[in-house]
Amino acid sequence: MDKLDAIFSPETIAVIGASTTKGKVGHDIFANILSGGYKGTLYPVNPKAKSVLSVKCYTSISNIPDPIDLGMIILPPKAALQAVKDCIAKGVKGIVIVSAGFKEVGGDGARIELEIKALCANAGVRVVGPNCLGVINPSKNVSLNASFSARMPTPGNVSFISQSGALCTAVLDYAADKGFGFSKFISIGNKADVDELDLLRYYHNDPDTDVVMIYMEELSRDAKEFISEVMDMTSGTNPTHVIAIKSGSSDAGARAAASHTGALAGSDALYNAIFTMSGILRCKSVNELFDYAQAFAANKYPASDKIAIITNAGGPGIIATDMSEQSGLKLAKFSDNTIKELKKYLPSTANFHNPVDVIGDAASDRYEKTLATVLSDQEVAAVLIILTPQSMTDAIGTAKAIVHIAKNSRKPIVCSFMGVVDVSEGVKLLQKHKVPVYQFPESAARSLGALRQGMKWLFRKILPQFDLEYDTAKAGKIIDGYIKEGRLVLGELDGNEILKCYGFKTLPMALAESSKDAGNIADKIGYPVVMKIVSPDILHKTDAGGVIVGLENSKDVEQAFVAIMEKAKAYNSDAHIEGILIQKLAPKGKEVILGLSKDPVFGHAVMFGLGGIFVEVYKDVAFRLSPMGRNVARRMVRSIKGYPIFKGLRGEKPSDIETVEKHIVSLKAMADNHPMIKELDINPLFVHEEGNGTTVADIIIRLDNE
Amino acid sequence: MDKLDAIFSPETIAVIGASTTKGKVGHDIFANILSGGYKGTLYPVNPKAKSVLSVKCYTSISNIPDPIDLGMIILPPKAALQAVKDCIAKGVKGIVIVSAGFKEVGGDGARIELEIKALCANAGVRVVGPNCLGVINPSKNVSLNASFSARMPTPGNVSFISQSGALCTAVLDYAADKGFGFSKFISIGNKADVDELDLLRYYHNDPDTDVVMIYMEELSRDAKEFISEVMDMTSGTNPTHVIAIKSGSSDAGARAAASHTGALAGSDALYNAIFTMSGILRCKSVNELFDYAQAFAANKYPASDKIAIITNAGGPGIIATDMSEQSGLKLAKFSDNTIKELKKYLPSTANFHNPVDVIGDAASDRYEKTLATVLSDQEVAAVLIILTPQSMTDAIGTAKAIVHIAKNSRKPIVCSFMGVVDVSEGVKLLQKHKVPVYQFPESAARSLGALRQGMKWLFRKILPQFDLEYDTAKAGKIIDGYIKEGRLVLGELDGNEILKCYGFKTLPMALAESSKDAGNIADKIGYPVVMKIVSPDILHKTDAGGVIVGLENSKDVEQAFVAIMEKAKAYNSDAHIEGILIQKLAPKGKEVILGLSKDPVFGHAVMFGLGGIFVEVYKDVAFRLSPMGRNVARRMVRSIKGYPIFKGLRGEKPSDIETVEKHIVSLKAMADNHPMIKELDINPLFVHEEGNGTTVADIIIRLDNE
Repeated sequence: MDKLDAIFSPETIAVIGASTTKGKVGHDIFANILSGGYKGTLYPVNPKAKSVLSVKCYTSISNIPDPIDLGMIILPPKAALQAVKDCIAKGVKGIVIVSAGFKEVGGDGARIELEIKALCANAGVRVVGPNCLGVINPSKNVSLNASFSARMPTPGNVSFISQSGALCTAVLDYAADKGFGFSKFISIGNKADVDELDLLRYYHNDPDTDVVMIYMEELSRDAKEFISEVMDMTSGTNPTHVIAIKSGSSDAGARAAASHTGALAGSDALYNAIFTMSGILRCKSVNELFDYAQAFAANKYPASDKIAIITNAGGPGIIATDMSEQSGLKLAKFSDNTIKELKKYLPSTANFHNPVDVIGDAASDRYEKTLATVLSDQEVAAVLIILTPQSMTDAIGTAKAIVHIAKNSRKPIVCSFMGVVDVSEGVKLLQKHKVPVYQFPESAARSLGALRQGMKWLFRKILPQFDLEYDTAKAGKIIDGYIKEGRLVLGELDGNEILKCYGFKTLPMALAESSKDAGNIADKIGYPVVMKIVSPDILHKTDAGGVIVGLENSKDVEQAFVAIMEKAKAYNSDAHIEGILIQKLAPKGKEVILGLSKDPVFGHAVMFGLGGIFVEVYKDVAFRLSPMGRNVARRMVRSIKGYPIFKGLRGEKPSDIETVEKHIVSLKAMADNHPMIKELDINPLFVHEEGNGTTVADIIIRLDNE
Repeated sequence: MDKLDAIFSPETIAVIGASTTKGKVGHDIFANILSGGYKGTLYPVNPKAKSVLSVKCYTSISNIPDPIDLGMIILPPKAALQAVKDCIAKGVKGIVIVSAGFKEVGGDGARIELEIKALCANAGVRVVGPNCLGVINPSKNVSLNASFSARMPTPGNVSFISQSGALCTAVLDYAADKGFGFSKFISIGNKADVDELDLLRYYHNDPDTDVVMIYMEELSRDAKEFISEVMDMTSGTNPTHVIAIKSGSSDAGARAAASHTGALAGSDALYNAIFTMSGILRCKSVNELFDYAQAFAANKYPASDKIAIITNAGGPGIIATDMSEQSGLKLAKFSDNTIKELKKYLPSTANFHNPVDVIGDAASDRYEKTLATVLSDQEVAAVLIILTPQSMTDAIGTAKAIVHIAKNSRKPIVCSFMGVVDVSEGVKLLQKHKVPVYQFPESAARSLGALRQGMKWLFRKILPQFDLEYDTAKAGKIIDGYIKEGRLVLGELDGNEILKCYGFKTLPMALAESSKDAGNIADKIGYPVVMKIVSPDILHKTDAGGVIVGLENSKDVEQAFVAIMEKAKAYNSDAHIEGILIQKLAPKGKEVILGLSKDPVFGHAVMFGLGGIFVEVYKDVAFRLSPMGRNVARRMVRSIKGYPIFKGLRGEKPSDIETVEKHIVSLKAMADNHPMIKELDINPLFVHEEGNGTTVADIIIRLDNE
């Protein structure tokens, strides 16, 4: 028996802290379990009461004559700790602590939470909470409503995980209004023990759960473990669809960092990486969470991006078309046969092309025939049906026809029955038969787009890994040298050496210490060259007049050496100047930024995006964490808005994107091998035409010694 | 008496085509007027009936013994035409034609519609429709429901204009569910006569209308007239707030055009220009339309972007914070005094800083005191209140307290009472007292952001116009020369001449016809230079090897001349080559694109955005139509996402944006003066540091001879 079975499907429950006073949590939860029709046996525990709601009460869990699966504790921290000890002694398999006053308030509460966690881990007992709303399992065999909320949802195939107890009540209320069913529903509070990943594992193995909704405030787990496991759960032949809303998205850009990568690696960017890599669909609002869950709960997915729209009104049909295209879908072009068929029974004023307008006076028969016809068109992968209440409209009849056809169709059908009162009976019928239905066509189109995105994830391309080799020893030696000397900023020469160890192509360069020297070096590496001042005291080289680009001969180079030195001294007379770097001018290419940042919680992240000044304004970058690999890198590159630039605009040749993908994999390997790398910016990396690789034009590496 | 008064507030109505058969439109509309409690007198007209719903029926409108204000016609086209003639003869002031079968089906229907339009224009009678849902005026003095829909909305201060009849029914249904009130409600169908602008004028003068919602499919008016008038209506001390949803947004980018400007000037981009210039807030969905209308209907606006959030649950508070920041708002920093005050009555576990968490067990008193305290903080311009149903929550009590405080506050207060059933009584109370209330905090935050946007429009900066002079005659002469010769693509030399006439700074350049010539020209204009092939047969100069950049001396220039000529001949041996243009290399600056396009409906539009390859990928451009001026140009420049680039990133100096604003104004003047300009792209225009102007680096002008 999975330990979490004791939480979701216990045969016996002791409610420790059950109260006789209405309005108290200890009373309400007990009452909700009782009135929810729980199929197991329920025991109140309260030393001061003889019975609670007519049920015989025990002074302690140890006095209960029968074995107990689940202990629900509604007691202040110190008493809760004692109750936990009693539960363990009694041999319970699971504990839910509803009460607050633990980690979230700090001090004694936090200490007690840690103690409870250790005790239970030791005893092999799973704990949910503290500071949570409870657990609900509407399944007919269990019928458990161990929560604050008096409202028991109907059974369904969607399970819910919430880190906010308050949101749960509102969600249950909203779900009741929508006739939305749940398989399992849990509030995880402080996550002392049971967290999202435990529950995702459990839900993935639960035959009654097809879709999981998560409200997350923060992930308390190792991201790599989470991503690796969840990626598997959301993939394959028996996937669990996970839809999440994560609050706290506004911190991006609030970080102070020396590199672009560091500045952009806000926690929200990293959560995007976690969700994308795991195959979790991220929503922007609670409304979207419900909309998408409803669509996924029907378990049908569009095999292509081509859809058909059927409507009885032009305007909403156009609205749906717009939103479909914005959601990555296209309107299918019907076959001649489909159009011939439609012309048989639709009036001549109808529109036989997509979106099909069955005209305002359509009753249910026209909808039924049209739906059957367009569904059987091979081009059509999904159908969106819009019904507006007009004089001849038959909402129930149409809903019945849709339900009937949907039953035998593998292609997804989503509906928008517009309005509220006039169409409500039709809406209820669709909901009952798990045909997704929305108030507005925008929501229906967006949800169909989400289904398509889910399908694309399931059928994503998976290529064999790259075979890459690195000179880890050499790179490590350079870094160790800096660490030993207590220096944390790598010079450009050393930065380039490290990049070379990881397969990057850098430019020929050398440090000149005199004017003569500069001319000789330039002659050796070839023209044109770039010259850059090298000084630990001059960080903004351009501001100091320390950069000259495009020098063509040794005479100019020698003169430039003198000029740069003079300007640098004028800029900062105390600066220690190591010399001037002579570097070959980079062959042109598309400007890209590649970077590494180190997050205190999630570790190293790789960043990729368009470089130059645009990185600051458009912030068109993507982050990825471990586990890194070719396929992650491939999707990462394709995820930015600017990706078409690399495919070749205006007849240009495509860029060497595969080399960039290798670099992304290599950078992550570099971070894993040399964890003291704190920030790294390659900006720009010039990406040349396909087959011609890339060139590093500038590199910053910062270390930390933690 | 305004002619539209006869439509919205007639004293007498004749329903021509009133029917005794239930389910027929002619019956249902008559029945709806009757059962809606219309305060005037209603006359059915039907030659075959003695009475309709017990009301004495007339064979023709001419037989009605009393004067008639409004004729409602529900008859097929030919009979409708006769009815219109009868109405005019009778002396009606307004006509509503509900029936379909006119312009939208073409042929006879379209012809009859034109005839009706002409007859009525001649007689000075206003016509609504045909092909519309009808008119509703819920005001207690009128109580007119002349529509398909049996549902009469409650009175309110929001008026509605819909181009889709079907949407109206759904909207009325949705509004009824939300307790949303309307002042006037009209479906305009084919807009044979009365259109959006007529109605906006009427609503602007209507003391019962503060907010107008529009569902628009297309604007059938001259855009300049529309923008000029609506801009005034949405401005000043007695503004009407207009919120619109426009369908058909997915056509952008679908156009084939020779210039970037032409390719990007899809009708959706132009509608964005029309809405922005008019001060109309554009929504993405019907949900948003209602959300924003509810917010604006309360007639209170945040004086700054600083808001306070009050919540009884952490998670939803974070969600609201996120969405507020995404909607352009910021959380206010409370004064010490505010925090001291909050500490007096909130429990110690509460969060006294913004967002204020009054904790799950808050009853109404804590909400009341907290709201009063934060409202009186000078930093706070608006308050967002979140209530989640928890055990101690008192939704009605809290709603009462909010209503009480809101009554005396100029600062906007918006609420999110989460859930449905548990909070419904509280929600109803708030709705009754016009306190905006939403199901989810995201919607509340977004609506508050919309209010702030409205406030910013009202208080927008208005600067005196630029004083610019043009050499219109010279530019006209060049263009006329091309037109006369039947040439429609201007060479770069002539293009630059025209730009100079309109105040642009171009580069020194001349056409070289021989290698020697090229060297001399380059010596004269100074180095470095760019060389470009000039041939009407070679459009893609770079592909033909026809461009060489950065030549430094006459020897190189002479060699390059030979090389370019050879490559050009190899590329296209039949090409007529006029010579090679020698142009000074442009001094660097920020790359901008400026353009003109000509839309068949809306005329010339100016485009501004970031240039180079990014215009194609990010499409970060804005369009503006007439009336153009300094303030339009100023807001246009600031409207693109990339605008911060011009303010100076990484310690750079700001760019000369005022010169760009002048160019925008000048380009529009150029289009007005020379309407044969079909497309124009200046790409790139280099924008230099403030005070240093701009330089045109490349120009394409295409003409048409229409």
